[in-house]
Amino acid sequence: MNAIETLLQHRSIRQFSARPVEADVLDQIIAAACNGSTMGGMQLFSIIVTQDKAMMEKMAPAHFNQPMATNAPLILTFCADFHRFDRYCEFRAVPTDAYHNLQAYQWAVTDALIAAQNACVAAEALGLGLCWLGTITYNTPQFIDALQLPAHVVPVACIPMGYPAESIPPLTPKLPHSALIHHEIYHDYTDADIEQAYNGLENAPTNLQAVQENHTGTLAGDYVNRRYKKEDNEYFSQVLQEVIKKQGF
Amino acid sequence: MNAIETLLQHRSIRQFSARPVEADVLDQIIAAACNGSTMGGMQLFSIIVTQDKAMMEKMAPAHFNQPMATNAPLILTFCADFHRFDRYCEFRAVPTDAYHNLQAYQWAVTDALIAAQNACVAAEALGLGLCWLGTITYNTPQFIDALQLPAHVVPVACIPMGYPAESIPPLTPKLPHSALIHHEIYHDYTDADIEQAYNGLENAPTNLQAVQENHTGTLAGDYVNRRYKKEDNEYFSQVLQEVIKKQGF
Repeated sequence: MNAIETLLQHRSIRQFSARPVEADVLDQIIAAACNGSTMGGMQLFSIIVTQDKAMMEKMAPAHFNQPMATNAPLILTFCADFHRFDRYCEFRAVPTDAYHNLQAYQWAVTDALIAAQNACVAAEALGLGLCWLGTITYNTPQFIDALQLPAHVVPVACIPMGYPAESIPPLTPKLPHSALIHHEIYHDYTDADIEQAYNGLENAPTNLQAVQENHTGTLAGDYVNRRYKKEDNEYFSQVLQEVIKKQGF
Repeated sequence: MNAIETLLQHRSIRQFSARPVEADVLDQIIAAACNGSTMGGMQLFSIIVTQDKAMMEKMAPAHFNQPMATNAPLILTFCADFHRFDRYCEFRAVPTDAYHNLQAYQWAVTDALIAAQNACVAAEALGLGLCWLGTITYNTPQFIDALQLPAHVVPVACIPMGYPAESIPPLTPKLPHSALIHHEIYHDYTDADIEQAYNGLENAPTNLQAVQENHTGTLAGDYVNRRYKKEDNEYFSQVLQEVIKKQGF
């Protein structure tokens, strides 16, 4: 299978078989993750490999006990990391405080997410399934504690992986490409554009069922009033703001 | 070529042939970009396709006139975008203010960077070369103006692409994988670890030459005292902080 086929067959997998991820498979995933583009050649990320079930159990509450946090044989956590580069600067007796700011954080987040997505593509090419856990950006302090991350290291992506146990689910309904693309300048959306863009998502069986069961009226209402609520988002924004500052950026 | 081979052959390309990127090639890149993992199925990104040389010239100063900003036939700019979802909420008469905060920004940045890296893998699988322009996070306000981005849209990745004109350069020297990986918990680096990790980079011919020509002593000194200086990073951090706030996050 070539890369395009791998990319177009992506869908989230949330149930994993008991088959462990072989060491050579993990090595290939890591090699791919480590070969992505990186800001100025600095490779401002670290990957924490979790295979110990006790570690998974320890972190499960911070993942709101989602099954994927404990039922996968492997979890990769990608961290924005300026600590290693700081240590290198210290080692060469150069000041490290040039990179304790928001630009440096943004560079490191970008490097970490490039590495994370490369790892995902590699994993799927090797027959694994995976899903991203958004909880890493909610309960960031708990993950920093559990993984013993030093200052200037912030986890930004957490991806359980394993051989799929579930029969491969169909592709998730998505927006039409035309809704995501702008030529030369951003063209704002008319009501007709929005209706056309979201029509497929609104009528996807899983979304229709969610709206009906939760009495949320529309898919928009289901997001705003149930899935990702303002008060939660504002609370976890405050937590994230504080943790970025506490980690020294 | 399978996906693993594509991922392991990545290196930045900065010189492009005059051959245009064919429409069906662009379509495949976009399809791959739009099929990545996404926070809660929201697809919080937009892709601005730049092919008009006048637009490239307009943005070139904000890219510090790097040749790649004008010598590529195609530039893809990936934006963290909550505007489209806001418009959807408005359309369904649901409040939009649940997502005007740092969590929402982080989700959208993540979605945009997943899409960007998928696009890169697809482009390389199709024979294109590319490089990321870090200037997008420096001069973000100028790109917002040029691309006419509304509130709740922030550009986070800018990637010129095209068929390579240069003979394919060798792989960039990188840190050994072992320096980027931690098992179960973060293991801090001893001086010996740091020396071993950075030895290959310090002795890469391009880095030796840069240090010698610029009299910066060591590679660490070359980064801190020449490539990415504290005063620049702090200035552009302030710009980025203000633009994120101005865009409504």
